[in-house]
Amino acid sequence: MLEIFKKLFKGSKLLKGNVGIEREGLRVDRYGNLSLKKHPEIFGDKMLNPYITTDFSESQIELITPVFGTCEETYNFLNNLYDIVALEIKDEYIWPQSMPCIIPDDKLIPIASFNKSPKGEEARKYRENLIEKYGGKKQLISGVHYNFSFNEDMIKKLYDNANTELNYRRFKDNIYLKVTRNYLRYRWLLLYLLGATGIVHESYTGECVKTLQKISQGAFSNDGAMSYRNSECGYKNNIELFPNYSSVNSYVESINGFIKDGLIESHKELYSSIRLKAKDNYNLFNSLLDEGINYLEYRSIDINPFDKCGISLEDLHFLQMFNLFLLISEEESYDNWQEEAYDNQKVIARYGQNNVELKKNGEVISKEKWALNILNQIKEINKELSLGKDSLIDSMIDKVKDYKLTYTYKIIDKVKEEGYVNAHINLAKKYKEDAYKNRFKLVGYEDLELSTQILMKESIKRGIKTNIIDRSENFIVLKKGDKVEYVKQATKTSKDNYISVLMMENKVVTKKVLRKAGIRVPMGMEFNSIKDAISELEKFINIPAVIKPKSTNFGIGISIFPSGGKKEDIIKALEIAFKYDNTVLIEEFIQGKEYRFLVIGDKVAGILHRVPANVVGDGVKNISELIKDKNLSPLRGKGYITPLEKIQIDENVELFLKQSNIDINYIPNKDEMIYLRENSNISTGGDSIDYTDDIPERFKKIAVNSSKAIGANICGVDMIIKDYKDETSDYGIIELNFNPAIHIHSYPYIGKERKIANEILKLLELI
Amino acid sequence: MLEIFKKLFKGSKLLKGNVGIEREGLRVDRYGNLSLKKHPEIFGDKMLNPYITTDFSESQIELITPVFGTCEETYNFLNNLYDIVALEIKDEYIWPQSMPCIIPDDKLIPIASFNKSPKGEEARKYRENLIEKYGGKKQLISGVHYNFSFNEDMIKKLYDNANTELNYRRFKDNIYLKVTRNYLRYRWLLLYLLGATGIVHESYTGECVKTLQKISQGAFSNDGAMSYRNSECGYKNNIELFPNYSSVNSYVESINGFIKDGLIESHKELYSSIRLKAKDNYNLFNSLLDEGINYLEYRSIDINPFDKCGISLEDLHFLQMFNLFLLISEEESYDNWQEEAYDNQKVIARYGQNNVELKKNGEVISKEKWALNILNQIKEINKELSLGKDSLIDSMIDKVKDYKLTYTYKIIDKVKEEGYVNAHINLAKKYKEDAYKNRFKLVGYEDLELSTQILMKESIKRGIKTNIIDRSENFIVLKKGDKVEYVKQATKTSKDNYISVLMMENKVVTKKVLRKAGIRVPMGMEFNSIKDAISELEKFINIPAVIKPKSTNFGIGISIFPSGGKKEDIIKALEIAFKYDNTVLIEEFIQGKEYRFLVIGDKVAGILHRVPANVVGDGVKNISELIKDKNLSPLRGKGYITPLEKIQIDENVELFLKQSNIDINYIPNKDEMIYLRENSNISTGGDSIDYTDDIPERFKKIAVNSSKAIGANICGVDMIIKDYKDETSDYGIIELNFNPAIHIHSYPYIGKERKIANEILKLLELI
Repeated sequence: MLEIFKKLFKGSKLLKGNVGIEREGLRVDRYGNLSLKKHPEIFGDKMLNPYITTDFSESQIELITPVFGTCEETYNFLNNLYDIVALEIKDEYIWPQSMPCIIPDDKLIPIASFNKSPKGEEARKYRENLIEKYGGKKQLISGVHYNFSFNEDMIKKLYDNANTELNYRRFKDNIYLKVTRNYLRYRWLLLYLLGATGIVHESYTGECVKTLQKISQGAFSNDGAMSYRNSECGYKNNIELFPNYSSVNSYVESINGFIKDGLIESHKELYSSIRLKAKDNYNLFNSLLDEGINYLEYRSIDINPFDKCGISLEDLHFLQMFNLFLLISEEESYDNWQEEAYDNQKVIARYGQNNVELKKNGEVISKEKWALNILNQIKEINKELSLGKDSLIDSMIDKVKDYKLTYTYKIIDKVKEEGYVNAHINLAKKYKEDAYKNRFKLVGYEDLELSTQILMKESIKRGIKTNIIDRSENFIVLKKGDKVEYVKQATKTSKDNYISVLMMENKVVTKKVLRKAGIRVPMGMEFNSIKDAISELEKFINIPAVIKPKSTNFGIGISIFPSGGKKEDIIKALEIAFKYDNTVLIEEFIQGKEYRFLVIGDKVAGILHRVPANVVGDGVKNISELIKDKNLSPLRGKGYITPLEKIQIDENVELFLKQSNIDINYIPNKDEMIYLRENSNISTGGDSIDYTDDIPERFKKIAVNSSKAIGANICGVDMIIKDYKDETSDYGIIELNFNPAIHIHSYPYIGKERKIANEILKLLELI
Repeated sequence: MLEIFKKLFKGSKLLKGNVGIEREGLRVDRYGNLSLKKHPEIFGDKMLNPYITTDFSESQIELITPVFGTCEETYNFLNNLYDIVALEIKDEYIWPQSMPCIIPDDKLIPIASFNKSPKGEEARKYRENLIEKYGGKKQLISGVHYNFSFNEDMIKKLYDNANTELNYRRFKDNIYLKVTRNYLRYRWLLLYLLGATGIVHESYTGECVKTLQKISQGAFSNDGAMSYRNSECGYKNNIELFPNYSSVNSYVESINGFIKDGLIESHKELYSSIRLKAKDNYNLFNSLLDEGINYLEYRSIDINPFDKCGISLEDLHFLQMFNLFLLISEEESYDNWQEEAYDNQKVIARYGQNNVELKKNGEVISKEKWALNILNQIKEINKELSLGKDSLIDSMIDKVKDYKLTYTYKIIDKVKEEGYVNAHINLAKKYKEDAYKNRFKLVGYEDLELSTQILMKESIKRGIKTNIIDRSENFIVLKKGDKVEYVKQATKTSKDNYISVLMMENKVVTKKVLRKAGIRVPMGMEFNSIKDAISELEKFINIPAVIKPKSTNFGIGISIFPSGGKKEDIIKALEIAFKYDNTVLIEEFIQGKEYRFLVIGDKVAGILHRVPANVVGDGVKNISELIKDKNLSPLRGKGYITPLEKIQIDENVELFLKQSNIDINYIPNKDEMIYLRENSNISTGGDSIDYTDDIPERFKKIAVNSSKAIGANICGVDMIIKDYKDETSDYGIIELNFNPAIHIHSYPYIGKERKIANEILKLLELI
C-alpha cells in the first residue's frame, strides 16, 4: 500500500486531516479535594455549550474543541478552553491527571445536573444507572478523546485509483474499519508512549488500591505500571466486549447483540478504546448505516499531566503519523486478534515500564522489539512520502529505548518527591498562572486584533459557536441556536445602521447632529485659504482656540491659544498650519482632559483616560532602569499583541527629556512622575487608566445621548472634561468613533478590567 | 449712511442675505383654459408640502423655495420646483403670466380643497369669504412674492457701530421699518422695471376689461399700461388701507384697527405691497411684538413671462442692490408720503410705458428723471462698496431710457403677434420642454451625484424637507414631520445595517454567505504562488474557468476557458496572471450576460444590462458620423452630469476597430451593430438597457434572496444569466453592491424609466 501512496501523494499535505479533542478534567480545591460546587453558571446550559460542558460528574469539566484541519489549531483551541475555564473556576483547579484526585464516597460524588428537557432527563438517568453499575469513583476517571478523519481529498484519490466495484461510501468505510482494527492491534504502543496513569490516590476504589503498594504520600502504584486507566483498575465494562469490526453492519449488529443480551444498556456504555462515529451521533446506528463512518474516536489516551492541555502538540503530530501507519500497514489474519490485542493492552497498562513480552499473531515478541519495528515502519512512511517528521519519530524511539522518558515514569517520580496531591496541584497552579497571563488573548489567534480575540474568547466561554470568516479582516460569525451574528473588528455589528456609521465618519455631520441635539461640541470652521480664514477671523479672536491643518499627525502645525489669541497671533498660526495642509481648521479650544467613553446600547460600558508614556521614580533607579521595570508587565508587548506597548527609548523620548534638561540617566525622586513623550497614544507606550466608576453620571448621560443622537449602538465618545470631579464642569465632544477598541477598557494599565465583550454579546442578544 | 457702510463693509459679502420666493401659477390646458382637475396627488397634502401647494384656487399652484443665502440658490431651487410640477401635471401647463388665462364664471372656479383638520377648514372658509367679497376672477391673479432679510452679521456690525440706547431687536426692527417705508416710496420703480401685466384676457372681470381696448385675439390693454395687477384692475382691498409703519407696535395696532372697523377680516386680507414678517407667521402679531421683524415680503412683483421661474436671476440680483439702496437712502419727511406713493404706483401701473409725471414730496417729477436719479444712487453705492454690479445697473438704466425693453412691452408685442392664449402657451410649452430635458437632474446641484439629485428631486416633489448636510459627500437629510432620515449617496441609509455592508464589501464573505443560503456563486480559489495554485489545479481542469490577477483592470492578465482548459493551458494562464499580481484567482466561469438587479426592500426595483459603446448603421453614415449623432442625445454628457456619457473616439476605440480591420471611416450596413470597445462601462460611452419587465420571476427571486441572505435592504445584485428567456437557465451571482447607483435605472438608454427614488423613499417610510 505504501507503493500506492508513493504514487499518489507527496509532502505534508497528506498530514492534513480533521482533528477534534475532548478533554475531561476534575475540578478540585487547592487541597486536591473533588469540588462539590456547581458548574460555573457563566458557561450556560451544559447541553447547549458546544465547548465547555460536564461529563459524568458536576465537577468533571469536559472541554471540546471544534474540528480543525491542523493539529496546531486544535491544540490552540484546547489551550484557550483551558485558560477560559481555569480563570472562571476562581480558586479551584483543573486536576491534571486522568486518575482522580481525593474523592469522597459514591454518595457524595455530585452527579452532573441537567435542565429539565427530555434529553436532560435522559442524561441524568443514564448517570444514575452508571453509578449503580460501576460505582462513582471509576466514573471520575478523566481522559483525552481524540477524534479524527482523513483528508477527504486523500480518500477520494485512493478511491479513484482503486479500480473497485465498491461505491465510495463503502470504500471509505473499509478504510476506517481497517484503521480501527489496526488501532486495536497497535494501541498498546500508544499506551506506552502516551500513558500517564501509573499511579492512583488512596481514596480511589479499594478494589484497585489493595493490589498496589504505597509509594509516596497518598500515592499507590505497582512496579512497572503504565496506565491504570487502561487496566483492570480503569473504567471498563464488567465483561470485556469485542464488537465485530469487519463491516459497519456487523459492528452495529454486534453491539445491538450486547444490548439485547443485557450486557450494556446502550452503545454509549460500550467502553471500547475506539469508536466508529457517524454524522449524527445522537442517532448513531442509523446514521452509520445510512451515511457511513464519518470519523474515528480514540479513547485510550491518558491526560498528560505535563501539558496544560492534557495532550502535547508533539503527541498530536505523532498521532497523525500513527494514523497513516494504521492505514498503510497490511493486516495479517489471525483468528483471536481482538483477544490478543486486549491482552497486550493489559500487559502494557500494568507493566509497560518493564521490558515485557507481548504476543503477535500468537507469537511472543518483546515490547521493545515490536515497538521499534512499528516506529521504523513509520519512519519509512515518513521518508518515502517526504513528511518531514524525522525528529518526532526519533524522540518516540528514544522513549521506547528508555522508559524513564515516559510520562508515567516522570509523574511517578514527581509524586514520590511531592506527594500525590501536591505534585498534581503544583502543575495545575502553574497552568492557572499561564491562563491568567493569557487572559487578554486567544492563543493561536494573535494575528487578530486584541478586541476580536477578547470577543471570541468571551463567546466561546458562553458556548456561542465562534468562527472566523475572513481572518485578515477580523471578520467572525457567532451562532447560538438559530441566531447568527456577523461581527467585524469586534464592534462593527448588525446593531449599528450604516448611515450612523457614515455620520460618525464625517466630523462635519457629527458636529451638526450633536449640536442640534443640544450637546456641546467645539465651534469650528474649515478654510481652504488664508484669505477665507481671515474674513471670518473675528469670531475667533480672544476665544480659546486651536488652529490646525486638517490632516495632521503628532501635533505638527498645530497652534493652541488656551486663553484666546490676538488677531496677529492667529494669523501667524494660520500661516504655519497652511504650510502643512490646504485645509485648515480653527476650532474652539475646550480645556480639560480627554476621556474615551465606550457606549454600548444605552449605557456606558467603560471610561478611559490615556496618559503619555511615563515612569514614576523610586529615588534609586534612573529613567532607563525604570522603563525596563515598567516594560516587564505582561500587559506590555510589541506590535499590538498585548493591551499595552512597551516603552521604547528613541529620539523623541530623548528630545522630550531634553526640554526639561534631563536624559535617561536622570534618577527621579521617589514618586516623581516623568513623562517621556508628548502624545498619549498607547502605541508609543502610553498608559490607560480606567475612570468608569469615577466620572459623574451627568457626563455618562451626555455620552449616551451623543451616541443616541447619531443613532449608534456601539460608539466611542471622546469627551473633553475640564474637571471631571465637578458635575457642572464644562465639556465638549471631540469625536464619535464607530469602531472603538474594547481591549483598552478590558485590560487597562490602572483600574478595573471591564467586561466589555459581555456587553457586546448582550447587545447582539446572544446572551 | 453710505459713509458708515463704506467704513464698515466692502465687497460682495454685503450682498449675502436670505432670500426665499413664492411663485404662483395657474394650471391650464393646452387651449389656455383654467384646469378643473385636482391638484396632483403626488404632491401630497397641500398643508404639509413646504415646497408645492395651492393658493386660492385648486388650479393655482404655488411654488415655495426655502430661504437661501444667495440669489442663485433660490433661483435654482425655484427652477427645480417648476420642472417638478411641469412634468407632474402631464398635459397641462403652468400659465406664465400674473393675469389669468381663460377663466370661467366665479361659480366654476375650483376653490382649493383641504384636508378635514381645523386648519384645513379655516383655509376653506377663508377662500369662500374671499370669493364672495372680491369675486373669484381677481383671486386667480398670480404673482411672485419675494421674501428677504439682510445678513445678520451686517446688522450686528451696524448695531455695534451705532452707539444707540436701543436694544438690538429694536434697532433691527427700525432697519426693516425704514426699508419698508422706502420700499413703499420707491416701489413704482420696481413696477416699471419688473412689471409684466399690461394686458388682460377678455374673460377677465368686465369691470376691468370694459375700461380697455382690444389689441389682439382675446387681449385687452390701454395705451402705456405696465402692471394691471398693481392697478385698480388688480387684486386689492376694496378701500386702500395705509398701515402705520413707524414702529412694530403701531403697525400691529393700525391693522387691528382695520379689523375692528370691519374693513378686513384678518391681517391676511390686507393686500399691501409689502408685509412685515415674523418668526411665527401663523401667530404673526404676537410673534412680531415678541421677537421683532424677521424678514420682509415684497408682494408687487409680476410674473416675468420670459423666465421659466417667473422672475429672472438678474432681477433677483437687482433686488439685492435695491434693498441696500432702501436701507442706505435717507428718508425725507412728508406727511402724505403713503398716499403719494400709492398714487405714483397707480400712475406707473396704468401708464408706466409712457413718460408720465410722478410726485415726490408734493413736487412733480418726471418718471425718467426720478428713475435715473435712483439708479445713479444705486450705482454710487455699488461703486463705493465695490459690489461689482455695474452692468446690471446699466441694463436697468437702459430700460428706463427705452420702455420697449420692459417685460410689459415685450409681452404685449408677442400677444399682438400670436394672440393672448398662444403667446403665453407657447412660452409655457418651451418651459415644459426644458423641464423634461432637466428631468434627471436638479439644477444648481450638478456637483452632486446624479443618484443624489434624483432622490432629492423626488423628495422635494413629495414635500419631504430636503437639506444637504455635507455637499462633497452627497450627504443629505430628509425630514417629514418628526421623521428624520440621513442619506449618503442616495442608497446609503439607516435601513441597512453596518455589518451587511461590510459583508458585501468583502467578496470572500459574500460568497460564503450566499453559498450557504443555497445561491449559486462561481466556485473559486485565491492563490499567492503558482506552486499553491498547481497543487489545487485538478479542481479546475476541464471546468469552464477564469484565471485572473486579483486586482486587474481592463481585462489585462485574464484568461478565460469557457469550455474548460487542459492542465498545461491553465498553468500557462497562471503564469501570465502572476506577472500582474501576487495574488491570482481561479474562478469557475459562468456563461451568459451580466445583469444588475437593484433590490430595494423585498422587491426588484430595476434590472439593467450594460453593453459596450456601439453604433448601429444606416447604410449611409460612417462610424464617426454615427457616433456624433448618437452623442446628440440629451442623456449623454461629459463628466457624469448626465445618465450616459458621450462616446469618445480615442486610441482604444481605434485599436478595437482595427481588430475587425475597420476604422472610424467605415460605413456600417443598415442595422449593422458595431461595438467600439470591449468594456461595457457607462463611463466609456456604454449603453444601459432596462430589462425589468423581461427577466423571469425566478431570477428576481434569486436576487431578492441574495439581498436578504446578506441582510441588505438596498442592494445591487450582479447576476450572470446564461439565457434570461429560459427560466431554468444557469446563473451565478458575481457581486453584491451596497451603494448601487439609481440613475442608471431611472434613466436608461433603452427601456422604461424606473421610479427608483420613490422606492427608496418608501423604504425610508417617508412616503
